[in-house]
Amino acid sequence: MPDTIHLEDPQAPGPDRPPGRYPVTVGPLQVPMTEVVLTTGEVVRLYETLGPQGHDPSVGLPKRRAPWIEARQARGDRNFSQMHYARRGIITEEMQFVAVREGVDPEFVRAEVAAGRAVIPANRRHLELEPMIIGRKFRCKVNANIGNSAVHSSLEEEVEKLRWSIRWGADTVMDLSTGSRIHETREWILRNSPVPIGTVPIYQCLEKVKGKVEDLSIDLFLETLEEQAEQGVDYFTIHAGVLLRDIPLSADRVTGIVSRGGSIMAAWCLHHHKENFLYEHFDRICKLMARYDITFSLGDGLRPGSIADANDDAQFAELRALGELTRVAWEHDVQVMIEGPGHVPLHKIAENMERQLEECHEAPFYTLGPLPTDFCPGYDHMASAIGAAIIGSQGCAMLCYVTPKEHLGLPDKEDVKQGLMAYRIAAHVADVAKGLPGARLRDDTLSRARFEFRWEDQFNLALDPDLARAYHDQTLPQERMKSAHFCSMCGPRFCSMEITRRLRSGQRDELPPNPDLAARAEAGMAEKSAEFKARGGQVYVPVDEG
Amino acid sequence: MPDTIHLEDPQAPGPDRPPGRYPVTVGPLQVPMTEVVLTTGEVVRLYETLGPQGHDPSVGLPKRRAPWIEARQARGDRNFSQMHYARRGIITEEMQFVAVREGVDPEFVRAEVAAGRAVIPANRRHLELEPMIIGRKFRCKVNANIGNSAVHSSLEEEVEKLRWSIRWGADTVMDLSTGSRIHETREWILRNSPVPIGTVPIYQCLEKVKGKVEDLSIDLFLETLEEQAEQGVDYFTIHAGVLLRDIPLSADRVTGIVSRGGSIMAAWCLHHHKENFLYEHFDRICKLMARYDITFSLGDGLRPGSIADANDDAQFAELRALGELTRVAWEHDVQVMIEGPGHVPLHKIAENMERQLEECHEAPFYTLGPLPTDFCPGYDHMASAIGAAIIGSQGCAMLCYVTPKEHLGLPDKEDVKQGLMAYRIAAHVADVAKGLPGARLRDDTLSRARFEFRWEDQFNLALDPDLARAYHDQTLPQERMKSAHFCSMCGPRFCSMEITRRLRSGQRDELPPNPDLAARAEAGMAEKSAEFKARGGQVYVPVDEG
Repeated sequence: MPDTIHLEDPQAPGPDRPPGRYPVTVGPLQVPMTEVVLTTGEVVRLYETLGPQGHDPSVGLPKRRAPWIEARQARGDRNFSQMHYARRGIITEEMQFVAVREGVDPEFVRAEVAAGRAVIPANRRHLELEPMIIGRKFRCKVNANIGNSAVHSSLEEEVEKLRWSIRWGADTVMDLSTGSRIHETREWILRNSPVPIGTVPIYQCLEKVKGKVEDLSIDLFLETLEEQAEQGVDYFTIHAGVLLRDIPLSADRVTGIVSRGGSIMAAWCLHHHKENFLYEHFDRICKLMARYDITFSLGDGLRPGSIADANDDAQFAELRALGELTRVAWEHDVQVMIEGPGHVPLHKIAENMERQLEECHEAPFYTLGPLPTDFCPGYDHMASAIGAAIIGSQGCAMLCYVTPKEHLGLPDKEDVKQGLMAYRIAAHVADVAKGLPGARLRDDTLSRARFEFRWEDQFNLALDPDLARAYHDQTLPQERMKSAHFCSMCGPRFCSMEITRRLRSGQRDELPPNPDLAARAEAGMAEKSAEFKARGGQVYVPVDEG
Repeated sequence: MPDTIHLEDPQAPGPDRPPGRYPVTVGPLQVPMTEVVLTTGEVVRLYETLGPQGHDPSVGLPKRRAPWIEARQARGDRNFSQMHYARRGIITEEMQFVAVREGVDPEFVRAEVAAGRAVIPANRRHLELEPMIIGRKFRCKVNANIGNSAVHSSLEEEVEKLRWSIRWGADTVMDLSTGSRIHETREWILRNSPVPIGTVPIYQCLEKVKGKVEDLSIDLFLETLEEQAEQGVDYFTIHAGVLLRDIPLSADRVTGIVSRGGSIMAAWCLHHHKENFLYEHFDRICKLMARYDITFSLGDGLRPGSIADANDDAQFAELRALGELTRVAWEHDVQVMIEGPGHVPLHKIAENMERQLEECHEAPFYTLGPLPTDFCPGYDHMASAIGAAIIGSQGCAMLCYVTPKEHLGLPDKEDVKQGLMAYRIAAHVADVAKGLPGARLRDDTLSRARFEFRWEDQFNLALDPDLARAYHDQTLPQERMKSAHFCSMCGPRFCSMEITRRLRSGQRDELPPNPDLAARAEAGMAEKSAEFKARGGQVYVPVDEG
């Protein structure tokens, strides 16, 4: 993977570009993509989250959205929400940008945002943003959490984690810092982030009251929202659905309340014997969100913390409250997504997705995993990717990653990478399963390369090209083996693919008495080839065609 | 995990055993298990594949089955198949052993084996075996492949891989060696294996004819089977369902035939213009299998090698042939399992399981993955674990692992471990989802320990205790933190679980006006506790009760 992306138009694609991966930008909005040039001359375009590289972090990224936002401010707009524009029939630059990224029509983007089925988190103060969309009819997205805590980690490490996260495919990043320098850390992250940044503002509120939960108030909360809104935070996790009456439903659980925000709000409610002030003053919060175009990520404070607690009354009571709040936000044209669990055994995942769609009126679902088992700390990224792939295939729009350190400690860089790899796999598996147009092109192109022993093409199309190349070279280090017509699993004599190739090339003489089948097979190949060439306008399109 | 297991009775369990993991054997058949003693005094028993340790590999393991087999030979038995005994109403020692391992009634085991819904691969010449069962009403099993190839790896490495595989939970191991010293490697593996060993005999046949596929014959095949049967191989993968008429169905595939055995048989069929000799002479093979009690693993030679080829005519045509062969094998009272794919996108997995049950009369299904995407070489263990968990939850009885080196190179020890961890997770997720009695006890016990900050108990119950402990200690190395009432994710001030604990302990004073809910909550805890204590006779049982 190259270290630097130039936002200028790339050198014109031509037959002289050697096989490899190239950062490019597409169209007048300069939408970033990675082009993979194959040894066959084919070109495949991949969705890219990496953003501009090589900038001084103290200066920040180019402010690509500045002219778009200035025009809106100049005409006196007051509600900057993408939903607000969408409902008025306006296709914003953000929607156009997203349409290019997703390979769909801009009007389709507008309609999905207007209906609340998709969100484009894009605070008007986050000018460095490369807009992206979260909705179940689009590519399934992945969120990475970073953030310092009271125990560990520095500001510099957090900015580096941001860059590292987007290098490995994070579509959004949440800054969950709870320690000191919370404001400064967030500023650096935002100025250097091409992806939407989310936060949980109640954490900073609790810093401000020195941890005394009972001192939290709506005024302090709104003041904190304003502070973060000014910095450009794109979405806020707000636990407004933790209701006083529902808290006792969690008392008989194996693991009680495991959401930090949820337990903070529960403690406040019980201390004051009052309803959650986020719920009571939700209108005021909506007004602020509209002014900046910040997206709600309605937090699931009562999510299950173990499979024993999955799908219980507490969880679903909160989900109903979140559905009610979704309606209120939409009255303000404020974008909403709904956070979901957590820990859910495989056979209970579908009910989560079905009830979320119903209770929350098809607002995008954004789940943490879910983890389908609790017995494997150290491997929770793998375990939760199983649940994530399943709920993604059922329509979950964004998957919050889990790292190998979940439940055990703070993730380091390698943990962040492992978590992202597991979740990029889950999201792609979901896209293929839900039949997202073009999603399978990458699989099929890689499979063809595999069948034809085009090793370099396999590496360049792979999720992690360097790792794939390194693993191959451990067994067969010689350069010539990269074009060898066998691999190290079978060796030269037993290679099944090579035997099939020989069968295929020799089939005219050796085929059994079923000539119509052979003819159909040949016709099938031609048909598939034509189909492949016709696949323009998708997420992964051969550049010759698209 | 201890390095040595003593087959002698363990020291009597008592309140003086410090918390930790202990190898024990249970009952007169000395069934191995691992006991986890918790800091609460509770004891949880875990299924164990590790087998006797500390033996000289040139001597091999104790021959625990010798007296069982001698008694059968002494009375002149000719068909040694577990199915044969089961159908005559006989509960063998193997069935009794399996019943203790699985926490079920021996008669239930017999009935499942008699019906063909489960197999106990147990060649009468493999006297070192600790019997295990493969069937969808039992714990989902995991197979690990080892084996040298023409390119790489030594005999000593393969024996060490066997030990390493069972240490990390392999229920069966396939020796896929294709290179030199194939007989000697197998001998060492069998004499040191407490788990069933499977092979693909056609690989050795091809060695014998120096790679000239056309020289293969049924006589050479039967001679090779006999050689391996005498050594004690417990199950044979045999590609008898690759039929001449079906081979052209694979011609228009993206990745053709990817099974080595499948492509060898296809090449033979096309060369001779004759039907597969394994199919034609299947009766003779069955007779040999019955004499030793070797289980068929009917190979899926036409399995898809890419998601593009999943669920196609070639694949399902072969599945029908395998169903036909299953009936034939059962006429000989020979045990059968059916091999399955391979590469299948998520939304096409269920059809595989449904059709297998129907076409193959509920014989156990044994799949390789399946991989739900082709785009992530280097991470195929993770990707395929997603497919494996899903098909396992739908009834697949055994999952053949995939390592990170799949499609790229030969796995080393760390790859084998990673593959097994991914697949132990998939199998356990499947067991929980299919409601296997007792499966969730491990999750729930760990979750309770998590909620109560009993760190040592969490580690000892974990899939990989050493890794969990190491990850925790990276962030909070001080010993006292192992009993700290917070963890490194939130730190001491924001810990959600600690807040919940405070809520719970103070709930009498602080609860909102819904006292019946609080009372119900307390009743629920008592009920769960009683339920927990009543859970005797399951896979994971508290030793005080079970």
